[in-house]
Amino acid sequence: MNKNKFAITPPMGWNSYDYYDTAVNEEQVKANARYMAENLKEFGWEYIVVDIEWYAYDAGSQRKQYQYIPFWKVEMDEYSRLLPCVQRFPSAKDGKGFGPLADYVHSLGLKFGIHIMRGIPREAAHAHTKILGTNATANDIADPANICDWNPDMYGIRPDAEGAQEYYDSLMSLYAEWGVDFIKCDDICRMDMPTAKKEIEMLYQAIQKCGREIVLSLSPGPAKIEEAWHYETYANMWRITDDFWDSWKHLLPMFWRCELWQNHVSEGCFPDCDMLPLGKLGMGFGEEWECKFTKEEQVTMLTLWSIFRSPMMIGTELTKLDDWTKSLLTNAEVLRLLKYSNGARQIERDDKHAVWCSMDTEDNTGYLALFNLEEDKTTICVPWNRVEDYGIYGKKGKELWSGEEIDLTGKESILVPGHGAKLIKIY
Amino acid sequence: MNKNKFAITPPMGWNSYDYYDTAVNEEQVKANARYMAENLKEFGWEYIVVDIEWYAYDAGSQRKQYQYIPFWKVEMDEYSRLLPCVQRFPSAKDGKGFGPLADYVHSLGLKFGIHIMRGIPREAAHAHTKILGTNATANDIADPANICDWNPDMYGIRPDAEGAQEYYDSLMSLYAEWGVDFIKCDDICRMDMPTAKKEIEMLYQAIQKCGREIVLSLSPGPAKIEEAWHYETYANMWRITDDFWDSWKHLLPMFWRCELWQNHVSEGCFPDCDMLPLGKLGMGFGEEWECKFTKEEQVTMLTLWSIFRSPMMIGTELTKLDDWTKSLLTNAEVLRLLKYSNGARQIERDDKHAVWCSMDTEDNTGYLALFNLEEDKTTICVPWNRVEDYGIYGKKGKELWSGEEIDLTGKESILVPGHGAKLIKIY
Amino acid sequence: MNKNKFAITPPMGWNSYDYYDTAVNEEQVKANARYMAENLKEFGWEYIVVDIEWYAYDAGSQRKQYQYIPFWKVEMDEYSRLLPCVQRFPSAKDGKGFGPLADYVHSLGLKFGIHIMRGIPREAAHAHTKILGTNATANDIADPANICDWNPDMYGIRPDAEGAQEYYDSLMSLYAEWGVDFIKCDDICRMDMPTAKKEIEMLYQAIQKCGREIVLSLSPGPAKIEEAWHYETYANMWRITDDFWDSWKHLLPMFWRCELWQNHVSEGCFPDCDMLPLGKLGMGFGEEWECKFTKEEQVTMLTLWSIFRSPMMIGTELTKLDDWTKSLLTNAEVLRLLKYSNGARQIERDDKHAVWCSMDTEDNTGYLALFNLEEDKTTICVPWNRVEDYGIYGKKGKELWSGEEIDLTGKESILVPGHGAKLIKIY
Amino acid sequence: MNKNKFAITPPMGWNSYDYYDTAVNEEQVKANARYMAENLKEFGWEYIVVDIEWYAYDAGSQRKQYQYIPFWKVEMDEYSRLLPCVQRFPSAKDGKGFGPLADYVHSLGLKFGIHIMRGIPREAAHAHTKILGTNATANDIADPANICDWNPDMYGIRPDAEGAQEYYDSLMSLYAEWGVDFIKCDDICRMDMPTAKKEIEMLYQAIQKCGREIVLSLSPGPAKIEEAWHYETYANMWRITDDFWDSWKHLLPMFWRCELWQNHVSEGCFPDCDMLPLGKLGMGFGEEWECKFTKEEQVTMLTLWSIFRSPMMIGTELTKLDDWTKSLLTNAEVLRLLKYSNGARQIERDDKHAVWCSMDTEDNTGYLALFNLEEDKTTICVPWNRVEDYGIYGKKGKELWSGEEIDLTGKESILVPGHGAKLIKIY
Repeated sequence: MNKNKFAITPPMGWNSYDYYDTAVNEEQVKANARYMAENLKEFGWEYIVVDIEWYAYDAGSQRKQYQYIPFWKVEMDEYSRLLPCVQRFPSAKDGKGFGPLADYVHSLGLKFGIHIMRGIPREAAHAHTKILGTNATANDIADPANICDWNPDMYGIRPDAEGAQEYYDSLMSLYAEWGVDFIKCDDICRMDMPTAKKEIEMLYQAIQKCGREIVLSLSPGPAKIEEAWHYETYANMWRITDDFWDSWKHLLPMFWRCELWQNHVSEGCFPDCDMLPLGKLGMGFGEEWECKFTKEEQVTMLTLWSIFRSPMMIGTELTKLDDWTKSLLTNAEVLRLLKYSNGARQIERDDKHAVWCSMDTEDNTGYLALFNLEEDKTTICVPWNRVEDYGIYGKKGKELWSGEEIDLTGKESILVPGHGAKLIKIY
Repeated sequence: MNKNKFAITPPMGWNSYDYYDTAVNEEQVKANARYMAENLKEFGWEYIVVDIEWYAYDAGSQRKQYQYIPFWKVEMDEYSRLLPCVQRFPSAKDGKGFGPLADYVHSLGLKFGIHIMRGIPREAAHAHTKILGTNATANDIADPANICDWNPDMYGIRPDAEGAQEYYDSLMSLYAEWGVDFIKCDDICRMDMPTAKKEIEMLYQAIQKCGREIVLSLSPGPAKIEEAWHYETYANMWRITDDFWDSWKHLLPMFWRCELWQNHVSEGCFPDCDMLPLGKLGMGFGEEWECKFTKEEQVTMLTLWSIFRSPMMIGTELTKLDDWTKSLLTNAEVLRLLKYSNGARQIERDDKHAVWCSMDTEDNTGYLALFNLEEDKTTICVPWNRVEDYGIYGKKGKELWSGEEIDLTGKESILVPGHGAKLIKIY
Repeated sequence: MNKNKFAITPPMGWNSYDYYDTAVNEEQVKANARYMAENLKEFGWEYIVVDIEWYAYDAGSQRKQYQYIPFWKVEMDEYSRLLPCVQRFPSAKDGKGFGPLADYVHSLGLKFGIHIMRGIPREAAHAHTKILGTNATANDIADPANICDWNPDMYGIRPDAEGAQEYYDSLMSLYAEWGVDFIKCDDICRMDMPTAKKEIEMLYQAIQKCGREIVLSLSPGPAKIEEAWHYETYANMWRITDDFWDSWKHLLPMFWRCELWQNHVSEGCFPDCDMLPLGKLGMGFGEEWECKFTKEEQVTMLTLWSIFRSPMMIGTELTKLDDWTKSLLTNAEVLRLLKYSNGARQIERDDKHAVWCSMDTEDNTGYLALFNLEEDKTTICVPWNRVEDYGIYGKKGKELWSGEEIDLTGKESILVPGHGAKLIKIY
Repeated sequence: MNKNKFAITPPMGWNSYDYYDTAVNEEQVKANARYMAENLKEFGWEYIVVDIEWYAYDAGSQRKQYQYIPFWKVEMDEYSRLLPCVQRFPSAKDGKGFGPLADYVHSLGLKFGIHIMRGIPREAAHAHTKILGTNATANDIADPANICDWNPDMYGIRPDAEGAQEYYDSLMSLYAEWGVDFIKCDDICRMDMPTAKKEIEMLYQAIQKCGREIVLSLSPGPAKIEEAWHYETYANMWRITDDFWDSWKHLLPMFWRCELWQNHVSEGCFPDCDMLPLGKLGMGFGEEWECKFTKEEQVTMLTLWSIFRSPMMIGTELTKLDDWTKSLLTNAEVLRLLKYSNGARQIERDDKHAVWCSMDTEDNTGYLALFNLEEDKTTICVPWNRVEDYGIYGKKGKELWSGEEIDLTGKESILVPGHGAKLIKIY
């Protein structure tokens, strides 16, 4: 299996984290899936991803003190593999795991994904539970000093231990059986621990063996640019930023991050700008809030993610989607860039603005994105010589957010709102 | 209680680690104590210290793979406190802990010490066991990301959690009950984890409350010089080097380390050069070996430790002590420096040699130590002007290892063997 | 001017440094140029580059103490611009600079390049000499703390000072007048000093203004991968390693360096593996030596440089070229990769071997390079699945160093000598 | 000569920098000396120190752009030694240097000091001027890459070059001839450049040879605690902070810095908290301002400097001294601590307060300093157990700033103003 064929264009979907934190349940996941199938699927959205701690009892119940309750009960099978907690995922009862939920999602014409943490449950290591297909037990492969510094659930794995690859194989085999299409593996992308690099390779091998085309997504960022080749060889997407939230101080550095990774976007290989924190957010974090980005900043985010071709995972409760946000997520001409553009390059950037270009691979047009990084509106001078050096020569344009047609002949500069963006298709 | 009165001069004793690693047992401890009482006590040696993992089942049994078997059975009471493993310490049965062994050591006129790891047993955290005197349980005070990177037994403690100070109080209360005189707390001195500094303070408070004058020794090094005041305020001795072993590449940097800490030696406050790896060593590490230092290097080590006034803990099986090594450990005129000298200062050092001075606080004499840091013997030019600036004016000398009297009048230089030392008392 | 058109494929030429150090003279440069014109030009070699300190009096005369004699006389015009030292470049007399030498090189159908150091001569700053086209003098734009830590000739420039851009403009204007085709700017690529990034931009602007298509090469490396976009925007080639010499410990890390930069090779943008230290070397460094690479290592170097598409600058005295080395530098089928291949990617690498692929852009073939990183010969298992995933499906092969035809059907592995390489064209 | 006898207690004096920056002149120095002789000498103040760039022409004349004008004219003798600029020091004419000014200062019963920069003038290196007593010239010993990053005047010296020690010898010989009593050597204490450590040793040797007891003061800080022994061996005082100015954000960290260095204060060895920025300040920096410390903060500074026993150099124009500031600088009971106290130790410190103790070496009393590090006044609980552990048992007290007598019997806490201090002498 060529892993680059598992995700030929950047994955698009929904993820439970930004709204539910650890506490999402089966009904909520289904409701979001139904919404997607009915309203978003036609625009390319297809993944439904259950994020962190679906295996944990009482997840979210001590939120004031802990995001992840340490040393707490988790659902686990006899082979040291975590299972969905039936408190929140009743269809998982009788050892069915995520099979029934995956079936439901598939029945809507969508794909199903889950989050996992690198490693093996601490509970398993202390209990010396079995590993499928070997004589080793969890304590043999768990490394007591190899931990995640923000989540207490797992021990990292000794890559050289007998049973190590088998454990990851047993996980992917189970997920394939359930019908999982997408794995977001956490505590691995930033390579905080020295074994992380090897564990990425083990995950890759396990997917190759499992017989199912499972997309492999790595978190959290920032990924290490000096390991670009490694990510490209073994994974489909990798986070290039730490958790991204709805504030300008998170959005501004993304221009630098995309600059850094722009040459590393290709079929099956997608540097990942993280989820889209739009609409209603944060209910599981304590109290629901409305996305704090201005409308212009939301346009900026989606323009950058689109032209850069980041994967897009919506982080909101879809059933509460407002019209404005929905309009952003259903602009076919913008979303087309994820599927049909290529070779995006930043052609200019300073503290005040950024300019990007890319080419449409099908209709022989070009794209030009202008970003105003300052608070006040300004006219950005278009560097036409560089646009032409890039290979775009057309003189007719259409701004894709407004739909406005623009005659570019002699057009020296374009007005862009503060923290806003213009995305122009050029014929 | 003024902690500086617990150890007015540098502690002297024996420690099980260098010979037994994790695997020492009660009979072996007793045999070493008897030897000390009969042969060494009169020279000031008095502490018998049981080092790491006295609580661990099967300690040392998987030595080829693990120094410390992870996720393994430990002896623990209902209050999350480790107890001696009865496999190796039968007198600890029926919950008597180290009481009987401490009594035995005391009966010989000696003092009894134990090693502990910073934190609370991982086993306790996962089992939610109780903490004496509070409603908190072990999982409430254990921090899942606060671990030791070389030993798997414990979790560090959240200093602000309810029950944290109480847990350390309960430990010291138990140790005081047993009759412990000396605690070597490990994984704390180097402050690898951010809570270590607070945990040192908690140990100090716990000792103050326990009613027994327990000497507090911190490991492993190197201690942080920028925390000198903290160590001086809360502890009695602190390691200024990582584990010290019998090779010149370990010994040479001690001159720099002692230079760094020379102004920080005072009553109750002793920078610690680590144990003396002399005689037979390493049986518990796989195979017994003979100390790899040359005789001259052994003299150098003891001269430096003496004039600097490091604590001295012998790391060998005492019952196998050879005559040469014994002669080093029973040279009263040399060991006198630990008790009666003060204000040691390096007065010269380069890549080839080092010179130290100190004053005897009782008999109005001075000490001069000359160290040859090169492989070949050489005559070291005595910097008399600096010796006098230091305050030593006498002209009669006695070299304390050989007993040779020296007329220092007009003596410009002194022959010192390669890697060797001369220690001269000056009248 | 689109700088990417100045060097559509990786520059190929000769550089004086590896053989002459600072001390090359006009006759020697001419002799090498003649050799190139007669023997190498037809294979694509075209640049003749005079390396460091062509302006310095007595260069090389105190070689035992100094590579670069500090505070020594340099040739300089009234506008603070360095000129060729007439001691070694007699044709430069009467202010003609490198004009006559450039003319000579051009007359042979070749291109002419020179090395410069970032900044303005220290001599100029202390003498307050003029800057062409401004009222500022050298002391106004020189920054006294902005120096090169290995060469004493220059001060870096304050980018914001009046006269700063004008100084670089005046340099490029002079070089354009002389007929320079290639500038190797040193002390700039690694961005050791904070102004280096701005000085690269100033060089770019000066070249744009000068009216001549001058290729801009940046040294020394390693370039910073996180500044990839900056190099791509403003320069033509940038060193990805510190000075490269003829030893395996220099060659081995190039696999990692090429891995790091593989996605950053494109028209006009070439990560630079540094000069080829082949044949006779080092005369100016003290005593001439023969290239210390084994023949296999030389093949490895040229194979990697070729498939990666590094610029190639020969670092030897060409008139002394032996047959073997000449055969390496005139293998048209190998050198074709610089001109007609594209998209090189490493598809496998571990401690023992590396495998690269690229596509020929003209004849629809692929290239496969196998590298044995160990000392002993070994058969490298060809990862055909990855070769196919890359897009190469042919079954007929030709090894380009030996000329041997290979039937790849069912060919699982290929024998490669220790530290050697096989470069296979696949039909 | 024993350098520890040059300054048995911490030097006290005046320094031109805080008020005049680079631009002080002879008349101003004399006026300050006269004021000191008449008003402050009886309280122990005795040094008059001319700070940076007394050799520079036009110093201060381009203050908006440069603190130190680069590449500018300096006064220098034929032996590469800087001389006072006669623009500002007319008595230096005819090669008399600072001799006449030193004589004047001595005639008032005071001592005379000057600032120097580490190294040899850049001007000398470029001009190849002579070095007294050798055949070497300045370019032979100057290191072109060894510079100060904030001042452009000098090149550091190659310690191994012939002529290096001779140059420093020639400086000290000249200064001794002038009658200099105190050298503040800058760009050396922090050891920014690798030769700094050796240059300190060279300065020490030069002073030993010059025949005059010249106090050696090293700047700027922070000094490196791991080099404590080196400073103690070769210098009299060394800055433990970067430039100290009149703001709480500078004062607060001094508690941590003094904690760090408290064990390193002894006869002839004084960690230096830097000048006292009191009264009127900054005229040479652009515009005169009034000390921005609150009165309480000034008391805190002087209390800490006194009990810690930092050297004290007043940084103001003395002739403009107001009554309040003068009262601080003439409190004999407080200043007594510099002369007659010893062994100061911090006995308690947290984010809110600090407590220090020291002993008077003559009258058998103790000192207790309480510092309130918060903005609001508070009662600080006196840790009597630690005061007693330190060795202070008296029950009668006198607060030395107010003169108030305090009965300490049963006194549990003492009210201290926000950012203020109480300094209590205890009988």
